[in-house]
Amino acid sequence: MRIDIITVVPDILKSPFEASILQRAIQKELVEIHLHNLRDYTTDNYKQVDDYQFGGGAGMVMMIEPIDKCISKLKAERDYDEVIYMTPDGKTLNQKMANGLSLKENIIILCGHYKGVDQRVRDQFITREISIGDYVLSGGELGAAVLCDAIIRLIPGVLGNETSALTDSFQDNLLAPPVYTRPAEYKGWKVPEILTSGNFPKIEAWRENEAYKRTKELRPDLLDEDF
Amino acid sequence: MRIDIITVVPDILKSPFEASILQRAIQKELVEIHLHNLRDYTTDNYKQVDDYQFGGGAGMVMMIEPIDKCISKLKAERDYDEVIYMTPDGKTLNQKMANGLSLKENIIILCGHYKGVDQRVRDQFITREISIGDYVLSGGELGAAVLCDAIIRLIPGVLGNETSALTDSFQDNLLAPPVYTRPAEYKGWKVPEILTSGNFPKIEAWRENEAYKRTKELRPDLLDEDF
Repeated sequence: MRIDIITVVPDILKSPFEASILQRAIQKELVEIHLHNLRDYTTDNYKQVDDYQFGGGAGMVMMIEPIDKCISKLKAERDYDEVIYMTPDGKTLNQKMANGLSLKENIIILCGHYKGVDQRVRDQFITREISIGDYVLSGGELGAAVLCDAIIRLIPGVLGNETSALTDSFQDNLLAPPVYTRPAEYKGWKVPEILTSGNFPKIEAWRENEAYKRTKELRPDLLDEDF
Repeated sequence: MRIDIITVVPDILKSPFEASILQRAIQKELVEIHLHNLRDYTTDNYKQVDDYQFGGGAGMVMMIEPIDKCISKLKAERDYDEVIYMTPDGKTLNQKMANGLSLKENIIILCGHYKGVDQRVRDQFITREISIGDYVLSGGELGAAVLCDAIIRLIPGVLGNETSALTDSFQDNLLAPPVYTRPAEYKGWKVPEILTSGNFPKIEAWRENEAYKRTKELRPDLLDEDF
């Protein structure tokens, strides 16, 4: 899988791809991440990427021309499955969407910044608009990092143990059950006895029940969703 | 505001705080970010922070002792308003929650990694569990960065123009209206005439109408929410 990220602040995106699971996925050549600085696609001396909005009002808007130039260059080099725009008014990312995107070959992610991009960019170039949640961030960069993380960890071979992702929260519309590790007792706080019983069928049943209880208490909406 | 972030992979969190709005907020001393490496709170030679889960199964669990040591040390130094755990089964972050948290003085954010933390950590030390959305990430680090960004940009003085945050999506349960900038025509694609009319009351009315239309089309659920 190849992901091209277009941004005005590529610096934000350095460290998330240089550590832990994403770094290993890149080293194993299971994914390629290419960061593109929009300022490299400007034609004026000031490397201007944004301008005041038509009609007045606070906040700058990202101009269409550098974005067009960058996307056109990439598209001339290979086919892309999706050109995604990170924006708070996009479709809210969920695990099902992450599963689907993890099967794609080439993806462009455009990060909004300031007040967002000129609407004509969205109308002409974008195939999918994604939000990571109902809150506003300084820009789409952290959203892009979150999207990449959610997708990349699902690519076979990225996680050491493939069953690990399958038992995560949301994969079956249930939250994960509580987990415990050594020591069995710490400052008088003990792990549930069942977990040290060695009775694995009973442990499985306990976990399923706890996952269901937790979901019903914290996120009953998940139980109503189609799966 | 002071935010202490506890993590096993502090490297992931470097660049998000070293660029753009978050960097400026730190330079202006409007917020302090302190990263704590959990491995510094281990007592064995291997600096072990995780172990196999009781009852078997894939994925490691973060141990209670180093977390206890780190949180206890911080709490001995000052009072904290919240000890937040980033986890996919937490309460889903929204703009209202970000607004509330932006008023706090001292916050600890604990990032889960692997299969998460020993349940006793959640039972004993955590005052609030937050998820940034219904998807699974490699760890809580990007979630913590997202939470910090959502909060910090709301602190007065962080954004250059304070009205900028107030007209963002979600602040009034409406998505933002479309925005446009120069040139007025690009490859035959024109900006809506109203925006270059100079008639500001009409422009305001058009924007409100577009915001409402977009919300009704893309996110009708927002219109039903209490505000």
